[in-house]
Amino acid sequence: MLTEQGCRQRRSRLWSQIPEELEWLLVGDPRHVQYLCGFRINPLSFSADQRALLLLKRDGKCVLLADNFTKRSAGAAYFVDDEVITPWYTHRRSVVSRHEALTQAIAEARPYWSGSTGLIEPEGLTEMCAAMVAEDAAWQFAADEEETPRTLGDVLRELRRSKDGDEVELLKRCMRACAAGHRRAIEVMAPGLGELDVYLEVQRAAQQEAGEPCVVYGDFRATHAALPKAGGLPTDYRLREGDLFILDYSVILHGYRSDFTNTLPVGMVSSAASEQLQACRETLTATAKLLRPGAACRELWQTASSLLEQAGMGPLVHHAGHGLGLEHPEPPILVSESADELRVGDVVTLEPGCYREGVGGVRVENNYLITADGSEQLNETPGVG
Amino acid sequence: MLTEQGCRQRRSRLWSQIPEELEWLLVGDPRHVQYLCGFRINPLSFSADQRALLLLKRDGKCVLLADNFTKRSAGAAYFVDDEVITPWYTHRRSVVSRHEALTQAIAEARPYWSGSTGLIEPEGLTEMCAAMVAEDAAWQFAADEEETPRTLGDVLRELRRSKDGDEVELLKRCMRACAAGHRRAIEVMAPGLGELDVYLEVQRAAQQEAGEPCVVYGDFRATHAALPKAGGLPTDYRLREGDLFILDYSVILHGYRSDFTNTLPVGMVSSAASEQLQACRETLTATAKLLRPGAACRELWQTASSLLEQAGMGPLVHHAGHGLGLEHPEPPILVSESADELRVGDVVTLEPGCYREGVGGVRVENNYLITADGSEQLNETPGVG
Repeated sequence: MLTEQGCRQRRSRLWSQIPEELEWLLVGDPRHVQYLCGFRINPLSFSADQRALLLLKRDGKCVLLADNFTKRSAGAAYFVDDEVITPWYTHRRSVVSRHEALTQAIAEARPYWSGSTGLIEPEGLTEMCAAMVAEDAAWQFAADEEETPRTLGDVLRELRRSKDGDEVELLKRCMRACAAGHRRAIEVMAPGLGELDVYLEVQRAAQQEAGEPCVVYGDFRATHAALPKAGGLPTDYRLREGDLFILDYSVILHGYRSDFTNTLPVGMVSSAASEQLQACRETLTATAKLLRPGAACRELWQTASSLLEQAGMGPLVHHAGHGLGLEHPEPPILVSESADELRVGDVVTLEPGCYREGVGGVRVENNYLITADGSEQLNETPGVG
Repeated sequence: MLTEQGCRQRRSRLWSQIPEELEWLLVGDPRHVQYLCGFRINPLSFSADQRALLLLKRDGKCVLLADNFTKRSAGAAYFVDDEVITPWYTHRRSVVSRHEALTQAIAEARPYWSGSTGLIEPEGLTEMCAAMVAEDAAWQFAADEEETPRTLGDVLRELRRSKDGDEVELLKRCMRACAAGHRRAIEVMAPGLGELDVYLEVQRAAQQEAGEPCVVYGDFRATHAALPKAGGLPTDYRLREGDLFILDYSVILHGYRSDFTNTLPVGMVSSAASEQLQACRETLTATAKLLRPGAACRELWQTASSLLEQAGMGPLVHHAGHGLGLEHPEPPILVSESADELRVGDVVTLEPGCYREGVGGVRVENNYLITADGSEQLNETPGVG
């Protein structure tokens, strides 16, 4: 879980980027509300489609705005100085729409900002909510004359790239749960099993390790000579001897997620498939050694693609990796025309793959934290650790 | 899944409520986009936090606006006449924010409405999206002089109360999956089991029956003499002989959900607990006989509460039930001061419960479709059917 100290640091870092004339901020993207105070609706609740807002004042105060059932659906502890919670459902009277309950919370929070100028997150607030503060708020600004106007969301997405200690701890928790699913997949993998059966075994093992229900998503698909590339949630296909099962999946805990991959042989696989797996593993290991602050993401892609080509398995037909955190993918993006460079605090995937007609598909993937002097692998390597 | 015919009927019904001077509508609440065209992002995907928009024209045409990965994350088939899909992620270049990709889709869709006046859903569109159409659009209207201004969202929520045939079929699929989970809980319930173990067994059985991964949420909690009322996702508590396990949960398939309840004895329970269960079951059966169009929801609550009181178990300390569909709870609400009346097409729960210090908690619940001459129970009764 995010910590109070981490949330405070992030709020302080945010304020350092905000022009002095702005006295308050209103944030609505669920990822950003969480990033700044820890509040996030549990997606496994009846409030999953709702939103809460976070009002931040330059004096450091922060206030959560929500309806009473949204508050009850918090997925973890959160850290605010005050709350404005409006009754949406009382078990006594008919309900209004939950949007109305949220706009009511904004109206009640007016004393917090009245008479001063603020900034809203135009990507995170609905038009109905934004209209409640329109006369006192702007929604874009230029940090200086040379830059294009930016939104509050732009600033937050930029800040999110460098992960804090509490974020990395939470990511590691996701990765431990994800690794438990990978271990279980190795135990059960066999001809005759359905793709959905694999999903159910992996999902169960991941949640047992996490100690709580959570969202598990990704690629749970078999590949084979006639279908070398397949992705997405499981189908009703049943595994056959010689298939290659690409298990590329994420466990989300409190908004953060793991994303690493193993390719599992179903029974005995061809020597061509084994060579393919070997080439991907070697490419992964070699490319990982180049992870460091300042590395150009397009060069990392080029390295991975060239190594696969040298092994007769390339070029790489998709990204070599991407940033990971509250979104997936998120910057930096490791692709052929990327403008991104790695920075300290980035959490990224590396995921070389090859998909050959007549053989099948293989992909392997790990997750890394970029550190001052290189990188730290955050997940155990599936099937090895 | 929703059908093309059902989506067309709903769009046609929507247009019949829209003033003539409005030529187009822009919808953004994910529930409403789905209701009108079937498109919904799978919550078990990396696009879960994103949105797509639906542009509707008075001539019947409808257009989906989304980024390319949101389109790929559709949870089921959908039915539109055209699409404006903007590249957010290409596996070649760095990414912009997905909000920017969506506003780009709105800009590209301008020829569809340019020069005519439309209406946006202010609860469903972000300020950034709404700004793209602001010069051509209104966001509230009064249907006639006596009514208060309404939004497009208000109209859609009102339409959603009466479920169509395809919606009822989808709800029944949710209920079959939910029933499979209930059956599994009966099989495994025993002292020593953890609440999380029960969740994992139920979740697995529900998904196996559904044939696909899906969201399972609700109350998975043991009650006992010292804790007669408990709700929410499972904790690390281990069941003890004599506990009463309240299994009150939902399975979501393509946005729609079941919501029914059984209370399971853990080993041998006290005679006081058995009487409590009997009183709840009799209250449920008797109240269900009163379900019909025109029934006042406050009277249904009063009946359930009085029956519990007559059995020495009342009054009822929460709702007697609520509407169910793309939200939970949604109107009508069966509470003591409800202004709602049942209508044909409502899908509602009935859920009498009682929670006694020194004994424990019991609740039972079924789901019903309100029909012209009464009601149809949509779920099998847990443990009996």
